[in-house]
Amino acid sequence: MIPPPQHQQDLLTFLRKASVSTDASYRAGVLQCAEWVRGRLQTAGLQAELHSTPGYPVVLGRSRHRPGLRTVLIYGHYDVQPVDPLNLWKHPPFEPWIENGIVTARGASDNKGQILAHILGVEDQLAHNDLPVNVIFLIEGEEEIGSPNLFAFLEQHKAELGCDVIVISDTTMTARRTGTLTYGLRGLVPLELSVTGPARDLHSGVFGGAVVNPVTVLAGLVHALHFRDGAVAIPEFYSSVQSLKKWEREEWSKSPLTDARLLEITGAPRLGGEAGFSALERMWARPTAEVNGLYGGYQGEGTKTVLPREAHAKLTFRLVPDQDPEVILDLAEAYFKSLAPPTVRITTRRGHGGRPYLTDPHSGFGLAAQKALMTTFGGPPALIREGGSIPIVEAFKRVLGVDTLLLGLALPDCNAHSPNETFPLENLAFGLELNKALLAEIAMVPQAGIGA
Amino acid sequence: MIPPPQHQQDLLTFLRKASVSTDASYRAGVLQCAEWVRGRLQTAGLQAELHSTPGYPVVLGRSRHRPGLRTVLIYGHYDVQPVDPLNLWKHPPFEPWIENGIVTARGASDNKGQILAHILGVEDQLAHNDLPVNVIFLIEGEEEIGSPNLFAFLEQHKAELGCDVIVISDTTMTARRTGTLTYGLRGLVPLELSVTGPARDLHSGVFGGAVVNPVTVLAGLVHALHFRDGAVAIPEFYSSVQSLKKWEREEWSKSPLTDARLLEITGAPRLGGEAGFSALERMWARPTAEVNGLYGGYQGEGTKTVLPREAHAKLTFRLVPDQDPEVILDLAEAYFKSLAPPTVRITTRRGHGGRPYLTDPHSGFGLAAQKALMTTFGGPPALIREGGSIPIVEAFKRVLGVDTLLLGLALPDCNAHSPNETFPLENLAFGLELNKALLAEIAMVPQAGIGA
Repeated sequence: MIPPPQHQQDLLTFLRKASVSTDASYRAGVLQCAEWVRGRLQTAGLQAELHSTPGYPVVLGRSRHRPGLRTVLIYGHYDVQPVDPLNLWKHPPFEPWIENGIVTARGASDNKGQILAHILGVEDQLAHNDLPVNVIFLIEGEEEIGSPNLFAFLEQHKAELGCDVIVISDTTMTARRTGTLTYGLRGLVPLELSVTGPARDLHSGVFGGAVVNPVTVLAGLVHALHFRDGAVAIPEFYSSVQSLKKWEREEWSKSPLTDARLLEITGAPRLGGEAGFSALERMWARPTAEVNGLYGGYQGEGTKTVLPREAHAKLTFRLVPDQDPEVILDLAEAYFKSLAPPTVRITTRRGHGGRPYLTDPHSGFGLAAQKALMTTFGGPPALIREGGSIPIVEAFKRVLGVDTLLLGLALPDCNAHSPNETFPLENLAFGLELNKALLAEIAMVPQAGIGA
Repeated sequence: MIPPPQHQQDLLTFLRKASVSTDASYRAGVLQCAEWVRGRLQTAGLQAELHSTPGYPVVLGRSRHRPGLRTVLIYGHYDVQPVDPLNLWKHPPFEPWIENGIVTARGASDNKGQILAHILGVEDQLAHNDLPVNVIFLIEGEEEIGSPNLFAFLEQHKAELGCDVIVISDTTMTARRTGTLTYGLRGLVPLELSVTGPARDLHSGVFGGAVVNPVTVLAGLVHALHFRDGAVAIPEFYSSVQSLKKWEREEWSKSPLTDARLLEITGAPRLGGEAGFSALERMWARPTAEVNGLYGGYQGEGTKTVLPREAHAKLTFRLVPDQDPEVILDLAEAYFKSLAPPTVRITTRRGHGGRPYLTDPHSGFGLAAQKALMTTFGGPPALIREGGSIPIVEAFKRVLGVDTLLLGLALPDCNAHSPNETFPLENLAFGLELNKALLAEIAMVPQAGIGA
């Protein structure tokens, strides 16, 4: 499955646009990229325009509306992650290169390769027949910075974005040539935990032993997040967690994402985590309490004999149905307060949370997606959840009232968000085929729809 | 006790020399300061010269040698700590100002005010009579960066530095007008502890739950350093610790450094530490395991959902007699290894240690010091240890074979190493008197000497 040269050229052109949304010095590149996407949608035969936002523009493209047909909204993003550490890249990140059928560049899989496959699929169908459904492309430029303007955009354009189902290819396949339907995502809620002690940094020799060290206390609080068996120790943390279904455990136990493969991908010495669950179950269907950052005191070269005045931990909790972000924050705060010694002061700062997402892959559009994956890849698709969070999926459900089909075309070792990000060229071709098969299957779904 | 105007002027001139040894941009100031000290020793009636080292010069001053007299080496330093954070200073740190009998400037107490008092004391005696002992001043310019060249200097000049006892005023009095003899110092040994997990920072959503977080493991190891009652939990950590003597506990229980005073000085919400000991006992005579710094993962604004590849802790152990730095490092490393889970890799980096120092304040020179303090301050002196470490004291013992009398003139709230460092002018006058009384008392000590 090698895509034709002009499709490869399209991808290379797309990847040369340095569209890092988080870094203002890339502003020109991001705007050029938006303009290129708009033009490419027009070339494909769609009506397309840029919608300005307080940040980067949203590109909307739509096929000629034909009443009576289902409408499919395909979401993607044209912005990319930052490139640092630059020295770990084998080639400059915005000078894509192809080797052994794999293209390497920032954004190759996340999300340029994946969204381009859908554009090419729609173009292909428009060139030969008409589309079996109405199509709307919504391609934003701020996904990598948390889509700060997309939620308001959805509310404002709710009517014109009306659709039956959303399609997103921004997740991963479990292995090469294994079609994958992701039917669940974990939610996320951040909490910053701070411990302060003395009024200023003290000399650790003069006062050490009598003044309690905030870093030591914070280490104890972080340690107290987990039981020895790996389970989260916050009381009631699991009380609203849905059990895994029997079919899920069976399905996942056959995944090519074996422990050995996960060790290979991550480079970890050994896997770990909550007892009683497989690695995939822990990643996809069990909640976590994770320390994303911890800091206090001296970090420079050598020794500075300081007893620090403060220490901070940045925590995020990954949530699964039916955990509620606010309830989890309440439980965590209460737990830390119950543990805090009187020798220090403990403060917390709550972040904005995103709920977990879960649909039934065996109903309506889910079955359509499974059939399309089967057609495209010639075998039964993997049915998985993923551990990450895509907050916009929950917003689509809340604002537009529709479910999302997550059909990843990236591979687990694509280095998304890391140096030397890759995308297999064959997945550009498979993605094109998948788009065609999917739109055809969706056109045939009876009115009940997915999960209804 | 107000020092005469010309002594105040001497101190202000000394304090205007910006002699920050750790920052190369202050080089001219450090060298000017060394030159000024040499000149001031000469004015006082001593023979004085600069000895160049690979770093900043050592100033040596000596009185005309008279055979048959005891020789006292007075050690001090003319370099000072850095001044940052500059914005917290009420006036520029090298523009000393006097208010209510207190001079504020960088180096006011540490160590310019304290060493100047001794120079003035010797000058005063030379102006009226002759000295009762031979005096050597050794005033270095690298104390604040760990005296990197002084140890070799001692070895090289061992013969000409021969003396009966060392005198240092670079510690603190327990309260205003309370003469204080410090007869013990804690030792220090650093250990860096690192935990590494996956090959790179991972997405905490994608892999969190199955890959063990190095920060969480490190937090657990740091937590494991202490028992719940505050004692250090490393097996055998206390096995060679000398018990406190009954007289020490009684003496210290009467100290003006009460818990209330310590809370006032440190601003800590409450004191803590090892059960079964008072705050002063924990600071002065009990060892500690302190985290000077801990870091891993993201520390910026907001949230970055990373599962960090590594985490680091900078530890120092404060040691008391008869703990051995190398043995303590061995015990700590073995303990961490015994706790380390197989899901991460643990590495340690040992630092260079300094041994604890302890003499008997009730023998020979110790009694002489006590009498001099009594004469100067008109009451019985406080006999204390201190929690900090002065590695050169142990080197004096090892290389020159003599003990050190630590007679502090700084106050606990002098803000040494902090913004708005102060020195009470009365202590310049008291210090002058102390120097005179001390040299007289030392001259009368029988040959047995301190601790012999």
